[in-house]
Amino acid sequence: MAIKEGLRPGGRSARVQESVHSAVRQLLQEQERTSVTVPQIAARAGVTPSTIYRRWGDLAALLADVALARMRPDSEPANTGSLRGDLRAWAEQYLDEMSSEPGRNMMRDVQCSQTPGYCVTILGGQLQVILDRYQGSGQALPSVDRLINLLAAPTVFRILFATEPMQIEELHELIEIALQP
Amino acid sequence: MAIKEGLRPGGRSARVQESVHSAVRQLLQEQERTSVTVPQIAARAGVTPSTIYRRWGDLAALLADVALARMRPDSEPANTGSLRGDLRAWAEQYLDEMSSEPGRNMMRDVQCSQTPGYCVTILGGQLQVILDRYQGSGQALPSVDRLINLLAAPTVFRILFATEPMQIEELHELIEIALQP
Repeated sequence: MAIKEGLRPGGRSARVQESVHSAVRQLLQEQERTSVTVPQIAARAGVTPSTIYRRWGDLAALLADVALARMRPDSEPANTGSLRGDLRAWAEQYLDEMSSEPGRNMMRDVQCSQTPGYCVTILGGQLQVILDRYQGSGQALPSVDRLINLLAAPTVFRILFATEPMQIEELHELIEIALQP
Repeated sequence: MAIKEGLRPGGRSARVQESVHSAVRQLLQEQERTSVTVPQIAARAGVTPSTIYRRWGDLAALLADVALARMRPDSEPANTGSLRGDLRAWAEQYLDEMSSEPGRNMMRDVQCSQTPGYCVTILGGQLQVILDRYQGSGQALPSVDRLINLLAAPTVFRILFATEPMQIEELHELIEIALQP
């Protein structure tokens, strides 16, 4: 339910979404996330609380929607001229972002959402952009699933469940494994 | 803080822990987890709420401690006679357990704990038991970290963030990758 499809861009519905998202982002900067409430967000966004409940269901779903929207990258993955270089740049940035406080909060919010699978869809889209650059180059390309399993999964798993974060050297080793035919 | 070290097994402290853990397990079977409270647990366990707060800090930390205790396996990983076979048996059981409702709740609770890293310590211990069986067998053995990155991480990541669960065939492919020298 987080993102309704078929909305006219710039229509009333899109404007409501933008103003509610923006209110959430502002409030999260101003105060503790546990103290943010739906009526507060509604007041800031200039909508009624029932608009929010109708569209997002509850606060957890709304926070997750905002977190997912933040995940959509502003720009294409860096183009370094080689597949290995592009994957290194992408994986290092992903590790940085997910290790940060906003990244950790985002992972928590996304797990509470009703569409956590959207996360892998976004990651897959970014990785596909990288792979598409090297189609027809003659080199064997890994699948998107392989890259998600071997790069994104260990990065996130280590942040969530281990005492030691992933080191850059380890990330580079995983990229070499992923690139093996 | 979840687990204090140096406790005499069977001492007063160990008995308090066992009775509080047991009260939590009972209550989680009887009612919604969101409705379980510290005073309720204390009453069931025959201790005061302040005993619980002093020892665990808060309800989230206590639930996480119980979840981690559940993770400690009752028995050694299955011994099938080959490294590949042992890893398959272990990984398939891990996928099953983590995909289940109790497994998902456990992952959520562990993330709220102050010692989520204990999770990887437990996994590492199980995998080391398997590897120790094949030391000196002449075959190249993967490291525990490699097995965690290539088997445990994708299994959990897919459960938490993807729409499609890991398929057994995919798990077997990851085991082949992990076994490559």
